[in-house]
Parts: sequence; structure tokens; C-alpha cells
Amino acid sequence: MAKRVTGPEIEKLIQLLAKVPGLGPRSARRAALHLIKKKEQLLGPLGLAMGEAYDKVKVCSRCGNVDTVDPCTVCTDTRRDQSMIIVVEDVSDLWALERAGAMNAAYHVLGGTLSPLDGIGPDDLNIRPLIERVSEGGVREIILAVNATVEGQTTAHYITDQLAGLDVKITRLAHGVPVGGELDYLDEGTLTAALRARTAI
Amino acid sequence: MAKRVTGPEIEKLIQLLAKVPGLGPRSARRAALHLIKKKEQLLGPLGLAMGEAYDKVKVCSRCGNVDTVDPCTVCTDTRRDQSMIIVVEDVSDLWALERAGAMNAAYHVLGGTLSPLDGIGPDDLNIRPLIERVSEGGVREIILAVNATVEGQTTAHYITDQLAGLDVKITRLAHGVPVGGELDYLDEGTLTAALRARTAI
Repeated sequence: MAKRVTGPEIEKLIQLLAKVPGLGPRSARRAALHLIKKKEQLLGPLGLAMGEAYDKVKVCSRCGNVDTVDPCTVCTDTRRDQSMIIVVEDVSDLWALERAGAMNAAYHVLGGTLSPLDGIGPDDLNIRPLIERVSEGGVREIILAVNATVEGQTTAHYITDQLAGLDVKITRLAHGVPVGGELDYLDEGTLTAALRARTAI
Repeated sequence: MAKRVTGPEIEKLIQLLAKVPGLGPRSARRAALHLIKKKEQLLGPLGLAMGEAYDKVKVCSRCGNVDTVDPCTVCTDTRRDQSMIIVVEDVSDLWALERAGAMNAAYHVLGGTLSPLDGIGPDDLNIRPLIERVSEGGVREIILAVNATVEGQTTAHYITDQLAGLDVKITRLAHGVPVGGELDYLDEGTLTAALRARTAI
């Protein structure tokens, strides 16, 4: 704004809100006004929730999940099959798979993918602790649920190599047509994979 | 999520973020993870900024603007022409007009529009203080910058009636083709207004 029309504290709030993914400079202003209008129901509680998250958030030293306890809720959940570890790139992938609710397994969050061009090597990721987890025994299967990108697949290969000598089954997610997807919009690679992995009806 | 995969404090944060306009349940999770990853640069400062805004935010008792001082920055700005008042529905309209930077005037925020169906009458809006501001004298012009909706125009008519006996010029925003707009996409009302208000080149 050319001239100041509100207090610096409110401008600061707008500035910080604009850095939240999903919000831009314009929607940050709208969000700030909404928060101010809902001062008691939203602005206050959200500020407190952020303060509390800031104080309490921890990265699980075992699997890399984000939680307020360490080891995390997933690692200490005795109702989960801890002998099955789903390896994901990011915490958001863990959350997405949990929403699907298809498995009752443990997780391991890599924190990214190998990317030599960006200078990201194996030691920059949470890979060595995964190998250690498997070495300790008690792990039956590793499901590599990395993204179907070049970096994701490279990372999957690297992990497979590292686990080579250990007595563990290694699997990856199936490729195919997304449920609800239209063939016409799919790329050739996906269609080829779906055809090759066709199943009997 | 079917089963808990993270701490209740983080779930609470996601729940509250989902209520911010521009964010939904899914983008709230993404936003929360981003905030946690940028704990020092974003989560902490944003929490503090919200707390500070919560403590300090005030509605200007003179014009209805949102600020941390009362009267607000706009009302006490001596470089502004305080004899000219731009009447807007919402604080966001004030901010939008200030971004345009076309005027150097004072403002008056109504806090909505008349809407008998929703039970919003004149006393629910910041109209009486506007009449008082004008009655006190020193106001030369009132620019009714309300939305070009039925409710906005009804509100403008009501305010015009209320100001009838007072010595003040009342104007409204021009109707016409938006700058950069294509005629083909405009409604008949706008085109008619633009034709009627045509100007010599």
C-alpha cells in the first residue's frame, strides 16, 4: 500500500500470512481481515495453537514423522504391524496414505529424494536410520511408496541396493490407471504400465 | 484421518488453519507441514504476530477501519483531505481503494449493507456515526463507494436520504467498462451504463 492505512502489527500479520502456502499477498489480506473479524473464535485460538505447536513439535527420531512426542504416535502404536514399513518421501505422503487407510503399517519418512544436481546425497536423507531399523530385525517388508518421478525412483533403487544383504521383502506401489481417471488424459507411460500389469476379471 | 498419526496439538493447528479463508482441509495440512518445517522463520513469528494482533487490534470509533490505534491511522493522517469521505462496505474495500492510490481522502466503513431479508437494518451498520460526522461540519463531499449490487445500491440510497438536509456533495463511483476488460464478456447493464456515460476523446 502506498500510504499506511492500518497498524504495523496488522501489516506484519499480513506479510507473514502471505508466506503460507495456498495464500498469496491478496488472499493474505483477506485472511487477516477474516481473522480479525473472528478474533475470539479464530485469531486468538490460532495464535495459541501456533505457539503450542512451536513449543511442542518434534521430528520422530525413529521414523522422521512430525509429532509432539518422540517416538511418534505411529511408531508407538502397538495396534500397527510394526514389521511392515512404508517408506515415503515426505510427512505429507504419510498423511495421504493414512487417509486412504488401506494399511495398518509403520512408516519411515526420508525427508526428500536423492538429487545429485541439488547436492542432496544419501547422508542428507533419513536413509541410514532405515537400514539400521531393518538391520535390528523384526521387519518383514519394506514398501517403497516414493513418488513415481525420476528422483523418487532413483531413491528407491538406492534403498533397494542398501537393503540387498538383509532378509526383508521389498515392494513398491503398483503403477496403473488412477481410480476415476480417464484413459484419454493419461500419459503413455501410465497406459503401458497399466496394460502390462493387467489383471484377470 | 482414521487413526491418529500425529499429536493433538498439530491436529488442532490443522483444524484451525482449515477455517482461514483461502485454505481448505487439504491445503491446511500442507500449510501446517510447511509452517512446521519453517518453524523458526514462519511458525514462531506468525504465532507471535497473531497474538500481538489479538491483543492490539481495534476498530476505529470514528470510521470503522481496523487498526491498532483508535482513532485509526487514516483518521489522524493530517496529509489526507479529511473533508472528503469515501464510504465503503468493508475494510477490504478501503484497502483496495488505497492500493489504487487515486484519492487522498478519509474513509467511513459501514460494516456491510442493508439487507432486510437477513435482518440487517440501518442500526446494524455504521451509518448513524457517518451522519454525525457530516453534521459536525467540515465535510465537503461524500463518495459512496459501495458495491454495484442491489444491497450496495439500496444502502447508498438510504444514506443519500439521511444526508438530504445537510450541506454536503454526494457522489458515487462511475459505472463503465473495467480497464483491460473485453466488451464481449460484459453484461448488458455495464455496457448500457458505459454507453450512456460516454466521454469525448
